Amino acid sequence: MMAQSDRPAATIANVYRGTFMHSTQKTALEVLEDELLGVDTDGKIAFMGRGAELQTLSQTFGFNPSEVTQLAKDEFFIPGLVDTHIHACQYSYAGTALDMPLLQWLNTYTFPVESQFTDLNFAQRVYSQVVKRTLRNGTTTACYFTSIHTDASLLLGKLANDFGQRALVGKVCMDINDFVEHYKETTQESQDETCRFIKELLDKKYPLVRPVVTPRFALSCKETLLGELGAIAKKHNLPIQSHISENLEEVKLVKQLFPKYASYTDVYLKNNLLTDKTVMAHGCHLSDEELVIFKETGASLSHCPNSNISLCSGLLDVRNVLKHQVKLGLGTDVAGGYSASMLDAVRRARDTSKVLTIQNPNYNTLTFEEVFRLATLGGSQALSLDGQTGNFEVGKDFDALRVNVAAPGGPMDLSVNSEEPKIILEKFLNLGECQFLFNLSDPKRLRCAVHHLLHVVSLLSGDDRNIAEVYVAGRKVVPFTD
Amino acid sequence: MMAQSDRPAATIANVYRGTFMHSTQKTALEVLEDELLGVDTDGKIAFMGRGAELQTLSQTFGFNPSEVTQLAKDEFFIPGLVDTHIHACQYSYAGTALDMPLLQWLNTYTFPVESQFTDLNFAQRVYSQVVKRTLRNGTTTACYFTSIHTDASLLLGKLANDFGQRALVGKVCMDINDFVEHYKETTQESQDETCRFIKELLDKKYPLVRPVVTPRFALSCKETLLGELGAIAKKHNLPIQSHISENLEEVKLVKQLFPKYASYTDVYLKNNLLTDKTVMAHGCHLSDEELVIFKETGASLSHCPNSNISLCSGLLDVRNVLKHQVKLGLGTDVAGGYSASMLDAVRRARDTSKVLTIQNPNYNTLTFEEVFRLATLGGSQALSLDGQTGNFEVGKDFDALRVNVAAPGGPMDLSVNSEEPKIILEKFLNLGECQFLFNLSDPKRLRCAVHHLLHVVSLLSGDDRNIAEVYVAGRKVVPFTD
Ligand SMILES: [Zn+2]
Ligand SMILES: [Zn+2]
Repeated sequence: MMAQSDRPAATIANVYRGTFMHSTQKTALEVLEDELLGVDTDGKIAFMGRGAELQTLSQTFGFNPSEVTQLAKDEFFIPGLVDTHIHACQYSYAGTALDMPLLQWLNTYTFPVESQFTDLNFAQRVYSQVVKRTLRNGTTTACYFTSIHTDASLLLGKLANDFGQRALVGKVCMDINDFVEHYKETTQESQDETCRFIKELLDKKYPLVRPVVTPRFALSCKETLLGELGAIAKKHNLPIQSHISENLEEVKLVKQLFPKYASYTDVYLKNNLLTDKTVMAHGCHLSDEELVIFKETGASLSHCPNSNISLCSGLLDVRNVLKHQVKLGLGTDVAGGYSASMLDAVRRARDTSKVLTIQNPNYNTLTFEEVFRLATLGGSQALSLDGQTGNFEVGKDFDALRVNVAAPGGPMDLSVNSEEPKIILEKFLNLGECQFLFNLSDPKRLRCAVHHLLHVVSLLSGDDRNIAEVYVAGRKVVPFTD
Repeated sequence: MMAQSDRPAATIANVYRGTFMHSTQKTALEVLEDELLGVDTDGKIAFMGRGAELQTLSQTFGFNPSEVTQLAKDEFFIPGLVDTHIHACQYSYAGTALDMPLLQWLNTYTFPVESQFTDLNFAQRVYSQVVKRTLRNGTTTACYFTSIHTDASLLLGKLANDFGQRALVGKVCMDINDFVEHYKETTQESQDETCRFIKELLDKKYPLVRPVVTPRFALSCKETLLGELGAIAKKHNLPIQSHISENLEEVKLVKQLFPKYASYTDVYLKNNLLTDKTVMAHGCHLSDEELVIFKETGASLSHCPNSNISLCSGLLDVRNVLKHQVKLGLGTDVAGGYSASMLDAVRRARDTSKVLTIQNPNYNTLTFEEVFRLATLGGSQALSLDGQTGNFEVGKDFDALRVNVAAPGGPMDLSVNSEEPKIILEKFLNLGECQFLFNLSDPKRLRCAVHHLLHVVSLLSGDDRNIAEVYVAGRKVVPFTD
C-alpha cells in the first residue's frame, strides 16, 4: 500500500530503500522492511511505499530508480531522537557531579558555572560542543535551557541553526537566588530580557529554531515573575518549559513558599504556565490529582531518569503517567544527568521501570518498544512538534538516524552481514518459547523478529559509532562537513 | 619516598611517568602525580617513585632516563579492571534479552544457545570476540563461565592466553535441566569432564589462565554432584565459582529442594563449595547470617548490577556486604547484563546504590571512589588474585589501562590539554562549597582535585575509545597487534 501527501507533488531530493523502524500511536515499534521513502526538496517525507512499488512510485513522483539509496543489510533507519530537557550551559561539567541532592548541587555546581556565560567566547565553545555532541548522538530535536544571559542564549540559537539541529531555546528566568547572589536578574530585567530574546530570535527566522519561555522553577521565581512569564507566553503563543516535583525537599519548600496554592502544579497553572505547549521536567512526585491537571491542560512531562537516579531525586512511575494520558518524552537533563546521549536516557528509563518492578513484582514494566516510542514520537508530542517530527509519516520532516549495527570499530560484535550470527539468531529465535512468542513459522515474521532484536540490541549496546548518518529536515547533519 | 621489592634487582623493561590513580586498602582513590613506575621483564612492577627521583632510580634499577614513557597531560594510568563474573558463551546474544525473570530467561535464551558450543568453530568465533571485546573495554582479568563442553572451554583458555588476558575459566557443571533436556550431563560425566578440563588446562601451563570449579547453581546440580565438585576443588586446591540468591523465586525453590539445609549458603557450605577461594555471583537476597558465613569462610561475592536490574532480580545492598567484611568485586554477568564493559558495571553499581538512597534517604550511598575500588582491587580480592593484580604495588604484575580523557573521536569533550577547560574546572572547583570540600588553597591539592574529577568523568562518560592502551603483566595487549 502506498501513502502520499495531498499537497501538490513536490520535487524529490532523495529516495531511501531498506528497513525503517518507528513508532506510531497504535504500535510502539513498527518494522517496515524493504520500504521506500522519498524526501522532497523541502526536507519533508513526500511518499512511503513498498520496495516492490519502485517503478510506480518513480513515475508518480518523478525520480530515477537508479538513484535510490539502498541501505545495507546491517543498516536501518529510525526517527531522530528527541531530547525534551537539556541544560546547554551545564554541558561544560557533565559528569563531574559529586554526590549531593538537587538544591545543594544547584548552589555548588550549577549557579557558579552558569554565571560564566556572560563570556561569549566561553559560550561559543561550550554551545558548539553541546550541539555537535548531541547531533552526533542522534538528537535531532533538543529542548534547551540556557543561562540567564540573552546574548549567549541567542548564540545557542544561531549554533543550532548553523549545525542544523531542530531546537527550542529558552533563556532562563530567575529573580531569586539566595546562594550565588550575583547570578540572578531583577523581575523587570527578566521580563525585558525574555521579550528581547523572543523578538531577536524570532527575527532571525531560523526554520528549525524557536524560543521557549523558561522560568527556571518555582523556587527561583517570584510570583510576579511567574505571572508575567505566563502572560508573555500567551501573548506570543509560545511554548513554555520549567521543572516540577523533582525531589521531595523541593516539593516541601514550594508548599511553604506558595501557601495559597493547592499544589506545585497549581502554582504553574494559576500563573498561566500550564498550557498545551508546556513541557515540565521530572514530575517524580506529582499526585494523581496533579496528573489530571496535566492531562486537562494538555501540558506534558519530560522524564529524565539518569538525572533522577544520579541526584537521588526519585523514580518516575511512567506507567501511571501514561495511564493518565499525559504526554511524555525523555530528557537527558545534562548535567543533572551525566550523559548527553538519548540512548542512555532510553536505557535508564528502562532501568527505572525495572527497579519499580523489583519493588513491586506486579508492576507493568515498560517494554523496550514503549521506551523507544518515548524517545521519539513521545518526545515530539511533549514538545508539540509531532506535526513536524517524531516518526516516519508523509508530510513530516525527514528527521532520521541511519543506524549501522555492524559499524567497523563500533561497540558491538553482532552482525547480520556475516551469515553465521544471523543463522544463530534465527536458531535461537526458533528454540524454546521464542517460537511461540514470535510465531516464527512464517519466514517474513522471522526476518522481522531478527530486525526487532537488532533494534533492541542497538538501543542497549550501540553508541554514536553505530549512528552512521543523522538527518534533520532532510539535511544530512552528521557526519559533519567541516 | 621510594618503594622497591626485596627480590634481586630485575631487568627493567619499561618505565612510565605521569599520573597514576588506584585504590589501596586504606584509600579508595589515591592520586599519584608525576609518578615513576618501572616494569621488569617478567611484567612485574619493579619500583615506584616520585618523578623527581628519576636520576637515583635510573641508577638503582639500571634504566636509561631518556627511555621513560611520559604520559600526556590528558592521560593517566588506572589498574586493569577485574570482571568477576561473565558468561563467555552468552556473549553471542548479549543485549537481546527480552523482559523476563531469571528462570524463564535461562530456559528460553541461555540453555538453547549454550548447547551450541559443541561446535568448536562457533566457540572459536564467539570466544575470540568476547576476549577481544573485554580486553578492549579494559578488562585485564576475567572470571568466565563457559558451557558444559570441555573442549570449547579449553579453547577459551587458549584464546585468553593468546590474547594475553588474565582469566579464570570454568567449564559449567549441571546434571539437572528440566527445560532443555539435551543440555545437561550425567553426574558422572560432569565429574569426569571437570577433572579432564582441570588436568588439560593445567597441563598447558598458561601463565595467566587457570581453571575454576563451576557448578552452575544449586538448582542445576544434584546434591551428589555438588559434593563431588567440592571434593575436586579441595583436592586440587582450586578456586570455585557459582551463583547464589539472585532472585526470590530461585531462593524459594532452593529452600524446597534442599530442605535439610539451613539456607542457600548452607547448601554450598556443607558441600565444601564455600572456601576462601570461592566467588559467588549476586547474593542479592542473602541474610545477615549468611553474610557472616561468607566472612568466616573467606568466600566472596560478585555484584552484577546490570544483570540484577535487567532481570529484575533485586538490588544488592553493597554497604551491608562491606559492613560484614565480605570480599566483593563487580561483574558484568553477560548476558544477564547486556554490557560487556566494566565501566558500565561501575555506573550501574552506583545507580543501584543511588536507588537504595532514594528508598531510604539515610542510606550511606557508595562513593565513586568506593565503586572504582570494587572494580579493581575489590575484584582482585574476590578472585584471590590480589597478590598478582588489582592496584599498583611493587611486586604485583603491571595490569593497567592508559586512559586518555581527550581521545580524538572519543565520547567526551572535556580536555585539560586546551588550557581553557582546565581553567574553568579550576574556577569551578574554587567556587562555592567545593573549595571547602577539597581544601584547594594549595595548588598541588587543586591539581589533584582536577585529576580526581577527570577520573570521575572518565568513569561516567568514557568508553573504550578513552582506553588508549591495555597492559596485562607488562605486555601491551591493546591495541591489538594483529
Ligand atoms: Zn533540568
Ligand atoms: Zn551468571
